[in-house]
Amino acid sequence: MLAAVLQVRDGRLRVLLWQRARQPHQDRWSLPGGRLRADEDVETSIRRQLAEKVDVHTLSHVEQLAVFSAPDRVPGHRVVATAFLGLVPSDLDPAVPADTSWHPADDLPPTAFDHAGIVPAARDRLRAKLSYTNIGFALAPAEFTVSELRRIYSAALGYQIAATNLQRVLSRRGVLRATGRTVAAGPAGGRPPALFAFTSRDLQVTDPFAVLRPPT
Amino acid sequence: MLAAVLQVRDGRLRVLLWQRARQPHQDRWSLPGGRLRADEDVETSIRRQLAEKVDVHTLSHVEQLAVFSAPDRVPGHRVVATAFLGLVPSDLDPAVPADTSWHPADDLPPTAFDHAGIVPAARDRLRAKLSYTNIGFALAPAEFTVSELRRIYSAALGYQIAATNLQRVLSRRGVLRATGRTVAAGPAGGRPPALFAFTSRDLQVTDPFAVLRPPT
Repeated sequence: MLAAVLQVRDGRLRVLLWQRARQPHQDRWSLPGGRLRADEDVETSIRRQLAEKVDVHTLSHVEQLAVFSAPDRVPGHRVVATAFLGLVPSDLDPAVPADTSWHPADDLPPTAFDHAGIVPAARDRLRAKLSYTNIGFALAPAEFTVSELRRIYSAALGYQIAATNLQRVLSRRGVLRATGRTVAAGPAGGRPPALFAFTSRDLQVTDPFAVLRPPT
Repeated sequence: MLAAVLQVRDGRLRVLLWQRARQPHQDRWSLPGGRLRADEDVETSIRRQLAEKVDVHTLSHVEQLAVFSAPDRVPGHRVVATAFLGLVPSDLDPAVPADTSWHPADDLPPTAFDHAGIVPAARDRLRAKLSYTNIGFALAPAEFTVSELRRIYSAALGYQIAATNLQRVLSRRGVLRATGRTVAAGPAGGRPPALFAFTSRDLQVTDPFAVLRPPT
């Protein structure tokens, strides 16, 4: 059981890794995880495992990614890993152990075992779902300006997108709502920007793609 | 390790099941599968397991589906299942053991354990990929008329689609090619229909959905 926990932090999409203090792969960076217990399903288990590294209440979304099962993926006793994607909203700074820190998902430090292959799978899953679901709710604070949301989406996607385009796309899907509140006006004056929220914090497919629809 | 092997047969999308001769769940229908060996990854293993039920050379596509891991999903010793989607082209009739047969994916007989939940997951994965990939290659014969392909897609999707729409969509993607051959003319005469083939038999995403493209 392993999880690639992703968060937009300091303008980049980052992944939570811990540095191994012992062999094998001493000093290399690992995804958090651990063993499945007899009384757990894999979803319950990964949340318990993650609790050792990060406050799981900060996890806004967790989903299965894939099974990694090369017989020699770790030395010694054979371990099959069910990998998960986890997400943390950008406004949280969860306490993590001293051996644990956030690293750019596109620029990993030396990683242990096959973990360097799991991070891109998680990143690509997130990027795909940003296009056809409301998964942005899991990266964003509860309330945000369009400008803040643009920075979050741009960091997660890995390229800059336009705020007008983002607002148009998300509004058309009905996943954004204006809260009626605004940011407190700064010293420069001017109209304070409006605060928005996602209409749902459950994952929904907003753009079901069915090029071969039934004839109407 | 379990596989939902799907094929369009007799005008419907069907799944390969074997009937359990012994307890637990005697007489109920099971997905084929078995245990992971120490020297295999899960992909190698499921192909070996399937070889006991069906000639694996007939499998045109195999992919991971999801992990099913409820602690009580099978009685006795705890078993976590990595489930796969497998596909067989519609023109093959692989030899299967006497306890094994094809059942409509939308109308299952009494199934064992949690297998009734795995079949819809496989079916829905296939249906989604028919819209954004060239996965039709794995359901179709090597060569086919547009009319035959329409019947295959309609059966897999669960609703009738128009041949003109299908040909237009697949041609626009560049995944279909005219072979230059035609069906042998029947006794009724008339122009014999053209035979087509898929341009690739490797899975390709033909319609990457990126509503939030980088500004150009």
